[in-house]
Amino acid sequence: MDFQLTEEQTMIYEYGAKLAQTYDRAYWLEQAKEGKYLDEMWLQMGQDGFLGLMVEEKYGGAGLGIFELALLMEGMGNAGIATLMLLAGPAMFITPIAKHGTPEQRAFYLPDACAGKTRSAFMITEPDAGTNSMRIKTFAKRDGDGFLLNGSKMFITGADIADHALLVARTTTLDQVERKTDGFTLFLLDMKSPGIQMTPIEIGITAPETQYMVYFDNVKLGAEHVLGEVDKGFQLLFDSLNPERILIAGMNTGFGRYALDKAVSYANERKIFEAPIGAYQGVQHPLAIAKTEIELASLMMRKAAWMFDQGINCGGESNMAKYAAAEAAIKAVDAAIQTHGGNGFTKEYGIFDLYPLVRLSRTAPINREIVLSFISEHVMGLPRSY
Amino acid sequence: MDFQLTEEQTMIYEYGAKLAQTYDRAYWLEQAKEGKYLDEMWLQMGQDGFLGLMVEEKYGGAGLGIFELALLMEGMGNAGIATLMLLAGPAMFITPIAKHGTPEQRAFYLPDACAGKTRSAFMITEPDAGTNSMRIKTFAKRDGDGFLLNGSKMFITGADIADHALLVARTTTLDQVERKTDGFTLFLLDMKSPGIQMTPIEIGITAPETQYMVYFDNVKLGAEHVLGEVDKGFQLLFDSLNPERILIAGMNTGFGRYALDKAVSYANERKIFEAPIGAYQGVQHPLAIAKTEIELASLMMRKAAWMFDQGINCGGESNMAKYAAAEAAIKAVDAAIQTHGGNGFTKEYGIFDLYPLVRLSRTAPINREIVLSFISEHVMGLPRSY
Amino acid sequence: MDFQLTEEQTMIYEYGAKLAQTYDRAYWLEQAKEGKYLDEMWLQMGQDGFLGLMVEEKYGGAGLGIFELALLMEGMGNAGIATLMLLAGPAMFITPIAKHGTPEQRAFYLPDACAGKTRSAFMITEPDAGTNSMRIKTFAKRDGDGFLLNGSKMFITGADIADHALLVARTTTLDQVERKTDGFTLFLLDMKSPGIQMTPIEIGITAPETQYMVYFDNVKLGAEHVLGEVDKGFQLLFDSLNPERILIAGMNTGFGRYALDKAVSYANERKIFEAPIGAYQGVQHPLAIAKTEIELASLMMRKAAWMFDQGINCGGESNMAKYAAAEAAIKAVDAAIQTHGGNGFTKEYGIFDLYPLVRLSRTAPINREIVLSFISEHVMGLPRSY
Amino acid sequence: MDFQLTEEQTMIYEYGAKLAQTYDRAYWLEQAKEGKYLDEMWLQMGQDGFLGLMVEEKYGGAGLGIFELALLMEGMGNAGIATLMLLAGPAMFITPIAKHGTPEQRAFYLPDACAGKTRSAFMITEPDAGTNSMRIKTFAKRDGDGFLLNGSKMFITGADIADHALLVARTTTLDQVERKTDGFTLFLLDMKSPGIQMTPIEIGITAPETQYMVYFDNVKLGAEHVLGEVDKGFQLLFDSLNPERILIAGMNTGFGRYALDKAVSYANERKIFEAPIGAYQGVQHPLAIAKTEIELASLMMRKAAWMFDQGINCGGESNMAKYAAAEAAIKAVDAAIQTHGGNGFTKEYGIFDLYPLVRLSRTAPINREIVLSFISEHVMGLPRSY
Repeated sequence: MDFQLTEEQTMIYEYGAKLAQTYDRAYWLEQAKEGKYLDEMWLQMGQDGFLGLMVEEKYGGAGLGIFELALLMEGMGNAGIATLMLLAGPAMFITPIAKHGTPEQRAFYLPDACAGKTRSAFMITEPDAGTNSMRIKTFAKRDGDGFLLNGSKMFITGADIADHALLVARTTTLDQVERKTDGFTLFLLDMKSPGIQMTPIEIGITAPETQYMVYFDNVKLGAEHVLGEVDKGFQLLFDSLNPERILIAGMNTGFGRYALDKAVSYANERKIFEAPIGAYQGVQHPLAIAKTEIELASLMMRKAAWMFDQGINCGGESNMAKYAAAEAAIKAVDAAIQTHGGNGFTKEYGIFDLYPLVRLSRTAPINREIVLSFISEHVMGLPRSY
Repeated sequence: MDFQLTEEQTMIYEYGAKLAQTYDRAYWLEQAKEGKYLDEMWLQMGQDGFLGLMVEEKYGGAGLGIFELALLMEGMGNAGIATLMLLAGPAMFITPIAKHGTPEQRAFYLPDACAGKTRSAFMITEPDAGTNSMRIKTFAKRDGDGFLLNGSKMFITGADIADHALLVARTTTLDQVERKTDGFTLFLLDMKSPGIQMTPIEIGITAPETQYMVYFDNVKLGAEHVLGEVDKGFQLLFDSLNPERILIAGMNTGFGRYALDKAVSYANERKIFEAPIGAYQGVQHPLAIAKTEIELASLMMRKAAWMFDQGINCGGESNMAKYAAAEAAIKAVDAAIQTHGGNGFTKEYGIFDLYPLVRLSRTAPINREIVLSFISEHVMGLPRSY
Repeated sequence: MDFQLTEEQTMIYEYGAKLAQTYDRAYWLEQAKEGKYLDEMWLQMGQDGFLGLMVEEKYGGAGLGIFELALLMEGMGNAGIATLMLLAGPAMFITPIAKHGTPEQRAFYLPDACAGKTRSAFMITEPDAGTNSMRIKTFAKRDGDGFLLNGSKMFITGADIADHALLVARTTTLDQVERKTDGFTLFLLDMKSPGIQMTPIEIGITAPETQYMVYFDNVKLGAEHVLGEVDKGFQLLFDSLNPERILIAGMNTGFGRYALDKAVSYANERKIFEAPIGAYQGVQHPLAIAKTEIELASLMMRKAAWMFDQGINCGGESNMAKYAAAEAAIKAVDAAIQTHGGNGFTKEYGIFDLYPLVRLSRTAPINREIVLSFISEHVMGLPRSY
Repeated sequence: MDFQLTEEQTMIYEYGAKLAQTYDRAYWLEQAKEGKYLDEMWLQMGQDGFLGLMVEEKYGGAGLGIFELALLMEGMGNAGIATLMLLAGPAMFITPIAKHGTPEQRAFYLPDACAGKTRSAFMITEPDAGTNSMRIKTFAKRDGDGFLLNGSKMFITGADIADHALLVARTTTLDQVERKTDGFTLFLLDMKSPGIQMTPIEIGITAPETQYMVYFDNVKLGAEHVLGEVDKGFQLLFDSLNPERILIAGMNTGFGRYALDKAVSYANERKIFEAPIGAYQGVQHPLAIAKTEIELASLMMRKAAWMFDQGINCGGESNMAKYAAAEAAIKAVDAAIQTHGGNGFTKEYGIFDLYPLVRLSRTAPINREIVLSFISEHVMGLPRSY
């Protein structure tokens, strides 16, 4: 075993701090509160070569792995910034195309996406399906050489600011397939296609990305929009789920550290009685517990990422990392709030607004209970519980 | 022992549900989001006789106790509504005047306050004092028969909508007093007095009341504004602290039940796999734990209130109730969020917006760590830890 | 509501402390370690009138309720002593006979049982049944006017020191009954009957009672041994389940206080650095949390007992009390261990040996998960989860 | 980073399972209950070359690091076996001699110790010192070329079965030293020296090693018994503290997995209602949480060990690993107990007897609160809290 980062990895990990010199949390919050995306930051990240980390160099990428992408996200979190478009983009759109796309698809989508000139969304969730993807109803019906898409998707992050989307739709009904995971196809959807409508979902999360309901009314899709094989999309999809969990874990361990750094500064300065409040174990022990759990989760996240890049099945590790990082980050932010007392709730100190996004991570993109059931079943060998 | 409410108490407990038929949580949220207070609801409560519950009938009250006031707050919470002005008003202003005011003060303040025609704020916290009231710097200097007030107060709930305030100020410096709790005087401040300025504090809490910084620049106070004795205000104040904790506990047990009711409805209806999600122990057990902790906290809250009304020292019980109710409510709201999945964060389902106020209750009006230190020292006989 | 004990109740509550002047925890532990029962203490309790608290005076009892019996158990726990025979005896044998027995049965069993001259066991659990009583296989087959009993029972507390037992057996097979709870009969078993064999179960619990496997081989039972109606035993049984939970709760809140008292004494005296260790929040806050949870659980236990005595359904409250008291006692004992450092594990300080019995209470007589499912289903209205 | 074990490391990690084919947990428990040490197992481990893992080959060792020693301990734990003599021996005696001993000391002690022919104890704790080593009173007074040792030590594991001990004694009083960590000397004590007496401490822990109070009455020590420099022992000692924490962490992650494996087997087989109990989320989710926390702690333990072997300061990581592994193991054993229901307490199933040793690890060799204070101060930069 070797727990050291390479020089290149260290540079990637520290990029977030550098980026935050220009695009800091104040900027992030301001954009979030005005409902605007981080356009300049995204473009800058593209120019700096961080959106195509996992893409071959000939398509504008860096030829690295999810390990480096996760370090990027973690390092940004350390500095109090994040963008969920790194999931929808590099993890769930760019990388699948780089791995499974035709040469034409790669050439068409990757250079602009890596450069930050285009953005993408990921569309799987539906109102009646939730975590049970078998219930997906959005249907792409054969229509000549192409398809006609009808249905709707829910909780689509950044649908309004995306140029493309990777969309999961049924192409064959459940009663017509051999294996229940067959019948789904992945489409590369052009968001300017006629027949797409969207309405924002008002949620209580402070983030620069908006969530959308997206409706499809006879949207035309061509054969060139199919990623991989028709009816065999689920297999490809599985490749993206672990990266998604790894990246969310990275964001959370980063945010946790950011919150703890703030709390430590405050606890070292704030005096109410004799000593700084950080000298009381009632204040410092919860911070130390959260710190420990953050570092533990970060290790598991890195192990999962390393396994993924090695081609080793990392389902258990990815789910453990996702679970642990969300729990640790919630604990870290909560301890930071409590350390700040009343100031933990003010805009000035900027602590409470860290909470909603880390709390959301306990629930999305997959909720804690499903994660625990996965670990029970696939890591421990217990029966399926649902 | 007897665990039954009287008919009158039951009526008071159920008043919240009745009130919410007109002024429901949607109204509450709407006012909160627009930064407006619940003017009509407050007036209605005054007309219905619920603001003077603890005041003698001759001043427009009902002659009851904190037990009934806590039931009122708990019952409102059950229905998803609350107003912190019940603390600043009935508990921290009206009742102290009813107990310790001169006949003139009672006659002047109580009838309008009980009728809901006036509102009041409570002013103790200062930026450098926090939970250490000994550090209060706001000073009322002798000036003829009266005083000149200078200084500032922080986190003053509803300062903008209050007609009066109960204010804690130093009237003698620490080096001039015999006992360190001497030297503080309670003033009945007219909020329209010249020399008062205020600026809102932006905080992350959804509530119809705004928090303020309030500044005093040579504000004139007369002898008629002194409640109780000059330099002996702390003794009176102690009388209000336990009621404050009891009422916050009542609000939280109420809100906890409201959140759980919503979660149960959702869990009974929502189906993702075979059974409604409420049939899975991963969903239902956290709800059952929260339910249990809510009911336990409610009992302790009622015991503390009963003791207060009996004239028995209820410091331990009030602090235990405050602690337990806040923890239980946080757990209840969190379990309700988790039950709702992604919908737990939408405005439509109205769950996540329950969180900030219950989370604030872990920190304010007194933070969890100070409560635990109080229990350690005063209930258990351990040494002071700070 | 009224939270005060009567003088008689106070006397009962304080009896444990008085009893422990003669029969203290050291005696209790010594008997436990030698595998001997507390014979003298039991007899003393009978002579003092505490075994028949719930029995009419004409049969040698005090005519009180479960409330008083629970106070007795709680008060004994406060002093570090307990005996599970109070469950198997007064709660599960004496009271059912007092309530449902024929005049002859009352006259035969009650006076000696109340006087402490006889003891009893309660026999329901079977190896393959666990918490699912429907799976009970022990069968009492009609045989003339009587029955022939065959089968076995597991985890029978004090089978070796019991004169009688209340036993649950099937008298009609599941496929012959209308309602699935029919077909069970309660028998008053004489432990000296031919055909009874028993083997001790080695368990890791420090207690003066031993657990047994009990085997029945054609044990003869007469009509006079049937309590209530044949095939209708389950209905009577339900009456005993809530008292059992209430008493276990009382034992646990008592043990929790005993552990905390020890911890407070130690923390006030032990100095490693400058101050006594009790002055550190890392030591005192866990004690304060446990203290709070103990007092909360005690209130719920008393409410459940009060409801039972009032004839109000107390299923929810009894389960909540059982759950909360076990969790609180585990937390209290753990905090006491941690306060004592290495000394928390020595025989000399007597802390660690409190753990096994309180830990067992999370699992028995009904495990935490079944309790939570009960609350989910019967208090909250969620679907059955198993 | 690289998360893969080498072949040699894998072999070492799996040795525990192999060893347990002969010396299994039943053997371990039997010896523990009879108060006998694992003599045959220890000798076997020496013969197989596992006691000198960290010693140069010329002294009979394998020339490896703490990483491999921790893998050994973890692998043994996985199989349900452990011996604390691996701490007192390889970690706290053999390795310090290998690192800091004179050639004569190495030649004298190491070959026999590596071969399992001799065993050793580690003596630092004293009754009045606890975690504050500055309070150590045991004194070795200059006496000609040597020293006369007087004083006592507490909680000395395996004092009765040790041939030697590494002992920390004062050689200069606190008021005579420049730096407060000066004045301590490490001695290599021959346990057969005249003047040593010992009495066992009765504790509630199931383990084959006994704890002792050891008393020194004018025990003669020569210059050849000094390890390192006189008065400079503390510096060497610090080298052993992190390995001690790492090994305890390894034991705990191992024991945690052993408990979970047992729980999974039971949960897959035991049926009370329709499905095996492992299909209920109330059973499986606590197991999955514990599993996750075990694997997280194991990673941190390995990182700390790797850092130690690389010569990087691993104080933060060792303490985090120690904390996390103890907490995770406690959770794992508790979940395993709960899964087993009443059988979790029987000797037959062997679950409850796992608890005492893992629980002890929250307190010893250093308690959780000191660990959290260390992390607060040395990792996070908060003020010292005690």
